[in-house]
Amino acid sequence: MDDSEEVEKINNNFYQAFESLSIEQMEDVWSHNDNTICVHPGWDLFTGWLAIRESWVRIFQNTQAIRFAITNTKIKVFKDIAIVVCIENIENVVDGQEVKFGVVATNIFERQNKKWLMTHHHGSTVTNYLPPNISSDVN
Amino acid sequence: MDDSEEVEKINNNFYQAFESLSIEQMEDVWSHNDNTICVHPGWDLFTGWLAIRESWVRIFQNTQAIRFAITNTKIKVFKDIAIVVCIENIENVVDGQEVKFGVVATNIFERQNKKWLMTHHHGSTVTNYLPPNISSDVN
Repeated sequence: MDDSEEVEKINNNFYQAFESLSIEQMEDVWSHNDNTICVHPGWDLFTGWLAIRESWVRIFQNTQAIRFAITNTKIKVFKDIAIVVCIENIENVVDGQEVKFGVVATNIFERQNKKWLMTHHHGSTVTNYLPPNISSDVN
Repeated sequence: MDDSEEVEKINNNFYQAFESLSIEQMEDVWSHNDNTICVHPGWDLFTGWLAIRESWVRIFQNTQAIRFAITNTKIKVFKDIAIVVCIENIENVVDGQEVKFGVVATNIFERQNKKWLMTHHHGSTVTNYLPPNISSDVN
């Protein structure tokens, strides 16, 4: 695998962790650092792994089921920094009802001891969203 | 000036260009590249300078007056890549009425021929926004 393929894999791991609603999987994807940053759609920013971890715990507690199809992925690798932009096509179950919406994400990974770790996630909801005609499996 | 100060300056130049509603100033801040990315709050992503330039022209045409106070700025520099996260505290005049809102931004700059240029802007509106008690001058 080249760097770009490795980064796409870790980016998919992030969405698999989200689908699994598993804080352990999410812990494995993120850098456990004080200067990591996370912006969930509509929220202010969280800084530092402890605050970010807590935000995921709360999100997972309030999510019944969520599925992602990732499209429009653009990856740039600069040695040990990788910047990924993608569209998250989301199917969410809220009170038994399926809701579809789109989020555009900027994800940044840093390679630390040969392992790519997420150091930045910025997601924001797309208004006037049209779901693509594809299945919702993350590879 | 060290790298971090230089990056903060170019980040402020971006907001000054926005306040000036000057496409020439905006042109001077951005990398004119096919793989630049811009996400305006609520919009899908624009890719490539030509599409991004057009989006600024449209925004400037539809803006009477806008003022930014930038807070919570966090800067990371990795050689020729710089990642800035900040809160844009915005005062906008819409139909003669002043509107205040907050946007969290991820801005990425690349140093090309010793000049920092914006290659990525991702802004998203903060819900439940409370304006800070500060003046709205960009330095």
